[in-house]
Amino acid sequence: MTRRYLRKQKDQIGSMPGTLLYTGVKKQEKVHIAIIDYNSDNFTEVDTQDIEQIKQYETSSTCTWVNITGLHDVETIGKLTGLFDFHPLMMEDIFNVDERPKIEEFDNCIFSTLKMLHLDQNNNLISEQLSMVIMPNMLITFQEQGGDVFDSVRERLRKQRGRIRNAGPDYLAYALMDTVIDNYMYIVGLLGEKIEDLEAAVLIPDNPKLLDKIKTYKRELNFLRKNIRPAREAVLQFSKLENKLISKRTQEFIKDLQDSTVQVNEEVETYREMLSDQLMIHHSNLSNKMNEIMKVLTIFSAVFIPLTFVAGIYGTNFDFLPELHYKYSYLIFWVVLIIVALIMLRYFKRKGWL
Amino acid sequence: MTRRYLRKQKDQIGSMPGTLLYTGVKKQEKVHIAIIDYNSDNFTEVDTQDIEQIKQYETSSTCTWVNITGLHDVETIGKLTGLFDFHPLMMEDIFNVDERPKIEEFDNCIFSTLKMLHLDQNNNLISEQLSMVIMPNMLITFQEQGGDVFDSVRERLRKQRGRIRNAGPDYLAYALMDTVIDNYMYIVGLLGEKIEDLEAAVLIPDNPKLLDKIKTYKRELNFLRKNIRPAREAVLQFSKLENKLISKRTQEFIKDLQDSTVQVNEEVETYREMLSDQLMIHHSNLSNKMNEIMKVLTIFSAVFIPLTFVAGIYGTNFDFLPELHYKYSYLIFWVVLIIVALIMLRYFKRKGWL
Amino acid sequence: MTRRYLRKQKDQIGSMPGTLLYTGVKKQEKVHIAIIDYNSDNFTEVDTQDIEQIKQYETSSTCTWVNITGLHDVETIGKLTGLFDFHPLMMEDIFNVDERPKIEEFDNCIFSTLKMLHLDQNNNLISEQLSMVIMPNMLITFQEQGGDVFDSVRERLRKQRGRIRNAGPDYLAYALMDTVIDNYMYIVGLLGEKIEDLEAAVLIPDNPKLLDKIKTYKRELNFLRKNIRPAREAVLQFSKLENKLISKRTQEFIKDLQDSTVQVNEEVETYREMLSDQLMIHHSNLSNKMNEIMKVLTIFSAVFIPLTFVAGIYGTNFDFLPELHYKYSYLIFWVVLIIVALIMLRYFKRKGWL
Amino acid sequence: MTRRYLRKQKDQIGSMPGTLLYTGVKKQEKVHIAIIDYNSDNFTEVDTQDIEQIKQYETSSTCTWVNITGLHDVETIGKLTGLFDFHPLMMEDIFNVDERPKIEEFDNCIFSTLKMLHLDQNNNLISEQLSMVIMPNMLITFQEQGGDVFDSVRERLRKQRGRIRNAGPDYLAYALMDTVIDNYMYIVGLLGEKIEDLEAAVLIPDNPKLLDKIKTYKRELNFLRKNIRPAREAVLQFSKLENKLISKRTQEFIKDLQDSTVQVNEEVETYREMLSDQLMIHHSNLSNKMNEIMKVLTIFSAVFIPLTFVAGIYGTNFDFLPELHYKYSYLIFWVVLIIVALIMLRYFKRKGWL
Amino acid sequence: MTRRYLRKQKDQIGSMPGTLLYTGVKKQEKVHIAIIDYNSDNFTEVDTQDIEQIKQYETSSTCTWVNITGLHDVETIGKLTGLFDFHPLMMEDIFNVDERPKIEEFDNCIFSTLKMLHLDQNNNLISEQLSMVIMPNMLITFQEQGGDVFDSVRERLRKQRGRIRNAGPDYLAYALMDTVIDNYMYIVGLLGEKIEDLEAAVLIPDNPKLLDKIKTYKRELNFLRKNIRPAREAVLQFSKLENKLISKRTQEFIKDLQDSTVQVNEEVETYREMLSDQLMIHHSNLSNKMNEIMKVLTIFSAVFIPLTFVAGIYGTNFDFLPELHYKYSYLIFWVVLIIVALIMLRYFKRKGWL
Repeated sequence: MTRRYLRKQKDQIGSMPGTLLYTGVKKQEKVHIAIIDYNSDNFTEVDTQDIEQIKQYETSSTCTWVNITGLHDVETIGKLTGLFDFHPLMMEDIFNVDERPKIEEFDNCIFSTLKMLHLDQNNNLISEQLSMVIMPNMLITFQEQGGDVFDSVRERLRKQRGRIRNAGPDYLAYALMDTVIDNYMYIVGLLGEKIEDLEAAVLIPDNPKLLDKIKTYKRELNFLRKNIRPAREAVLQFSKLENKLISKRTQEFIKDLQDSTVQVNEEVETYREMLSDQLMIHHSNLSNKMNEIMKVLTIFSAVFIPLTFVAGIYGTNFDFLPELHYKYSYLIFWVVLIIVALIMLRYFKRKGWL
Repeated sequence: MTRRYLRKQKDQIGSMPGTLLYTGVKKQEKVHIAIIDYNSDNFTEVDTQDIEQIKQYETSSTCTWVNITGLHDVETIGKLTGLFDFHPLMMEDIFNVDERPKIEEFDNCIFSTLKMLHLDQNNNLISEQLSMVIMPNMLITFQEQGGDVFDSVRERLRKQRGRIRNAGPDYLAYALMDTVIDNYMYIVGLLGEKIEDLEAAVLIPDNPKLLDKIKTYKRELNFLRKNIRPAREAVLQFSKLENKLISKRTQEFIKDLQDSTVQVNEEVETYREMLSDQLMIHHSNLSNKMNEIMKVLTIFSAVFIPLTFVAGIYGTNFDFLPELHYKYSYLIFWVVLIIVALIMLRYFKRKGWL
Repeated sequence: MTRRYLRKQKDQIGSMPGTLLYTGVKKQEKVHIAIIDYNSDNFTEVDTQDIEQIKQYETSSTCTWVNITGLHDVETIGKLTGLFDFHPLMMEDIFNVDERPKIEEFDNCIFSTLKMLHLDQNNNLISEQLSMVIMPNMLITFQEQGGDVFDSVRERLRKQRGRIRNAGPDYLAYALMDTVIDNYMYIVGLLGEKIEDLEAAVLIPDNPKLLDKIKTYKRELNFLRKNIRPAREAVLQFSKLENKLISKRTQEFIKDLQDSTVQVNEEVETYREMLSDQLMIHHSNLSNKMNEIMKVLTIFSAVFIPLTFVAGIYGTNFDFLPELHYKYSYLIFWVVLIIVALIMLRYFKRKGWL
Repeated sequence: MTRRYLRKQKDQIGSMPGTLLYTGVKKQEKVHIAIIDYNSDNFTEVDTQDIEQIKQYETSSTCTWVNITGLHDVETIGKLTGLFDFHPLMMEDIFNVDERPKIEEFDNCIFSTLKMLHLDQNNNLISEQLSMVIMPNMLITFQEQGGDVFDSVRERLRKQRGRIRNAGPDYLAYALMDTVIDNYMYIVGLLGEKIEDLEAAVLIPDNPKLLDKIKTYKRELNFLRKNIRPAREAVLQFSKLENKLISKRTQEFIKDLQDSTVQVNEEVETYREMLSDQLMIHHSNLSNKMNEIMKVLTIFSAVFIPLTFVAGIYGTNFDFLPELHYKYSYLIFWVVLIIVALIMLRYFKRKGWL
Repeated sequence: MTRRYLRKQKDQIGSMPGTLLYTGVKKQEKVHIAIIDYNSDNFTEVDTQDIEQIKQYETSSTCTWVNITGLHDVETIGKLTGLFDFHPLMMEDIFNVDERPKIEEFDNCIFSTLKMLHLDQNNNLISEQLSMVIMPNMLITFQEQGGDVFDSVRERLRKQRGRIRNAGPDYLAYALMDTVIDNYMYIVGLLGEKIEDLEAAVLIPDNPKLLDKIKTYKRELNFLRKNIRPAREAVLQFSKLENKLISKRTQEFIKDLQDSTVQVNEEVETYREMLSDQLMIHHSNLSNKMNEIMKVLTIFSAVFIPLTFVAGIYGTNFDFLPELHYKYSYLIFWVVLIIVALIMLRYFKRKGWL
């Protein structure tokens, strides 16, 4: 990911602020535009590739959710600038998928970006940028590719569950953010569970994969933190927004979101500390085991090396070596060996090594 | 616990905000409702399972404490929404037992959640969510199961001790929070005592259970911190609340609670640091002991290995090995061995290893 | 201390807020009341055990310092509530010797608690709670037992040194706090000196008591920090108090105290870091020495083990072993041994291990 | 770099504040002045060495960018003080290339400094100070030497791309700062990529260059942090400036810059932590491998040392050693050796070392 | 230093606030008073020991700098209290050389203290307290002993360089503070250079002095931090002072000083982290080298110990040992030895230890 980022960066340095430049990698062929138009009584779903078709919904009294995927097609999507008189900086941020989560007010709309985390088919963690433009009767969302975490929201719209069909685009935007942040919790929880499972393994020193896992989890936590942390400030700013596009009722719901973002960030920090603690404990445990190993080595060496030396002396071939010729020499030799061994063992016993 | 949490989470993502969904595990069969109705003169205790019975106490001039246990029965307890016109988000928070401690004002009531910590029969640490709804003449508390730390408060109500019978539901709420936070101190103190007891053990390197204990205490401290930390902000918010439901006198008491929450959090941090220090000292001590072990090994090896080599030379069977045939060879051999040994020992003495 | 604390805690959970309960351990038999009554011209010292005697000083125009020791006698001292119409929460705080340092304003007085640190006869660090109640013409101080750090203040009162005799109870309170905080500096300085003395010892690896000392000092610093840290906020609050009981002139002096509390806390932190640095350096030093030990072992082993093997070969009793029978075999044998040894030594020399 | 810094410092101590003193090293021969004069219709580029020529552009209605390189020539550049009535402190800051990034308002201009990071031909990281003076119709920038990251900005000016030709010197200053900060991201990203590449290497213990790389990257991150961190505050101050020289439109763009500076600083911190984690994991991995090595040594030693001892006993030359003369002694000897070896191996198997 | 500090402290506890007590060590025999009287036209230097002589300059229209050295003579210098009606607390702070840097306003003057760092003849770091009293036409400075870093300021006064002769005592005070803080940068830079030089040494494990140096630098950084850190707040307070004694022009210069104090503090922190990183890397490097040493030991032991055992077997003197008598036994013996050695070496090769 970084490499791509750098290539794009290099091109971008010194480019005009406000230049539309897609900083991601093309992930689908064509732009898809999914339009859901609803109010408490009616519900229509339209799929199109013609971006100008969106314009017609602007003045209708119904609420419209336009979901655009395929950000690589800068030319097509860029037409929105003209259609709705969007601010150039806002358009630039939509295409810059490395943008930091934030909320900004413009004259005719509110712009917000968030990172959307989900697992792909191979259970790899994917981070995608979600941009939202809240207009009087319309919410336009931008994603790099199709496939997101919003199916439950669509279902609620279709089935007319809850208050969603009676509320405006501000509530819809809240519902999407709520889903994104709920998903943070789910993702962090999944990783947290793996980290907690690690705890049992920490005291087993011969676990070659343990360090590997700790390393992997550390990296994943860093990735999560980088994506989740700025969401806290973005939601905080959102909850403080005084803007006629956000109803007082929705504001209340957004305030509730703050608790979730604070909590998910605290959980990430807690898991980080937990991993560091585990690494430290694992490290101490390795030292523990090393001490045990060394004791065994030392005891064996210290007991048998002197004995072997004694045996070596009586293996010499000196012509004149009187002890060799006494009748009880061999017996005495054994007695001496055993006494030496016992002294050594007692010494280690005293040291508490046995 | 996490697994349950994840299962619930997964279901919940994208569910309508305001949906009533119990995120815990069913812990008792039926809903129990314990109603204590009191003023300075009268005192009645009623146990019921009929939730609609609560309604009748709403308009009485006495103060009523309704304690509801058995949150799993969402259907029954959900009826309160209609009975008292509760805000849907508040009801959702009551059933979401993973909610972060907080205080929220609503039009007709004040809502507050706290984690209640207690030890079960096997001395395991249990965290249960306590939700409180303060209404003009009533306090409704919600718990997952029966059995709590409030018996002393009930006793004070029954025995008419202190000002509790003369005060309103705000003071009762304060009294419950005070009890919960007093209990934090007790629980933290219990763990802290075990951590302090560990200090004596830290300098004994052959303590196989030491790392195990440190790991366990670290995990328990993390658990405590996660539960206790948010209480500080919740109490702070509470103490700043300007709401006609909270009397000025009660407010003063709540301000006093803040000191306790700050202190208990500082204690948790102090114990965390103490554990880290102990781990670090234990680690250094292991290295210390390792040095000692290695010195013993090195001294034995370095003294006896050269001696064994000398003995080995005179154990060779060369036809022409003149030293073997001199009369005093064996004597000289011993002298040489002893001199070599003395030189080695002196060398180690100088190095300070003896 | 903790055990006592827990026992008390357990009793206290859920007890009525405002209940008078002494949380310490009885340290002297009876309550002692030392009354010093003074103005610029007169000075009287009275010792009594009759608490009601204090009342008579309330309305006199002189300034009175009432020092009460023996907090265990809740019943006797509790009478003050009635005598001076004290707030019940304030009285509770006086008896709760585990209270966090703070300043509180009440209608008729200012209440303040601080930890007083002093060394007992055996040089053990003692922390005692000092509570002060500032009233219009009177200062009442509460201690658990006699013996404190205030003799110099008493001397100044007796000898009419400085402005103390001309000032009111607010200045007296300041003078006591100043003495308490000066003493913090002294105590921290004493420990700091021991920690600085440790620096010389850190690079000596065979210092069995070093870790023990580091452990002890860490614990003592934790103890100091726990007692001293909250004083900073208490003094800050005090200096910001706008209360007719505190003269503008005294306020100026209190502002000066802040510098001291900030400085003593910074010193505690500096010593904590110094200890951690020392532990880390000691740890690295151990590794350093271990490397040295291992080099000696490795050099001896690697030089003599091959030599011994060669000697072992010619110690075998094979019938057909031609080398044994050449005339110069033994000489060649020695030459080979020496060459092998020199090669090994050169190898280690190159590695930089010699 | 430091040595130069110190030499300069030494001279500077106690020198008059406001003294013009170049604290860098002469990097090019002569002062070069590149003047770009433009408005939406006209565009002129002039290169000169005559500093007085700048004066004529002051009153023209076009916007002028004067880029001055070659700060060593204090005398020449110092003439600006007189030409434009610049504040002496501002002029001092321009020549002091060790100045901390900041924004300052003066009566007739706004002064700003930033560190400009770029890679030289050998890919070494270079930090150069960029000073900007924003005046009503003019932007003067100061650099130590030619060669910068602004070619893309010049191109935009020449090709009349974007809004740059229609805006004033405030927007030009923003465009330059934007380019500088974009470049921070690029530089940090480059280093970050190298750090992420390190991750694979961390679990290979025999990587002699690993520590070297970690050390190098740590130093480079420190260098980046030192240069980048203060930019955050500078941009924040800039975005809060209320000054008639900064148009409201430009202010909006500057606010956008803040996100970038926050993000780049967070990235630096994340990479710092990542490096520390890698070092810690590498360290644990070393201990892991050490344990493995020691196990091999211990198993070999503990198995063969006793066996060698037994062989040594029957190599002794005692006259009376009965076992030597039994027919099956040698067979029994082998059986004993194998049994001892098996017992040892089983012992290690049980310990989990095999 | 600490011991002295403690001795003084002990005396001071409970002493009257406002008591004049010199807390330093007598460093010169007599009080020296250097009076420099100047305005833009005139310049006089007078050296005296008569403190009352100062009084005459108070009412002159010229600006006077009185530099008093020799704080031990409390009696003489204490006369200033009477001469200029100084506040007793201010006088106490002048003599208490362990005072924390700060700025305080009094009715008739501004008081400020700073630590002045300089190197003595033996390059030892000396910290001395500089106190300044700014009065309408006079600046009085207090030092413990002669010899300071202000010679360049004196030179500027004598040579009438810069604006110093045209400005009042406020500007002079600023010039002295500027010199003191410039000197911090110089001192920190000197130490920083030594720390950066250490970097090359960190990867050499047999550097016995490395830990010693790290320890020394850590202690020196602690010393610097303790002295420099509070200067930041003092300068900040100074820059915010609204006092008729400080001209608006001087205020601007003081604001510039803030950048320097922030920068020097950040540098100290950066060097602290750099040292910690170096220690950690050195530690990992030690482990690295240890692994290398152990591999050598293990390879030698594991290869030769089995071989020696085999040789030992054929060195036994069993009567019946058939292998000894075959003609090719010795040859086979060698073949076996070499095969065993090769198997061992291959095993270690596979493990990657060779």
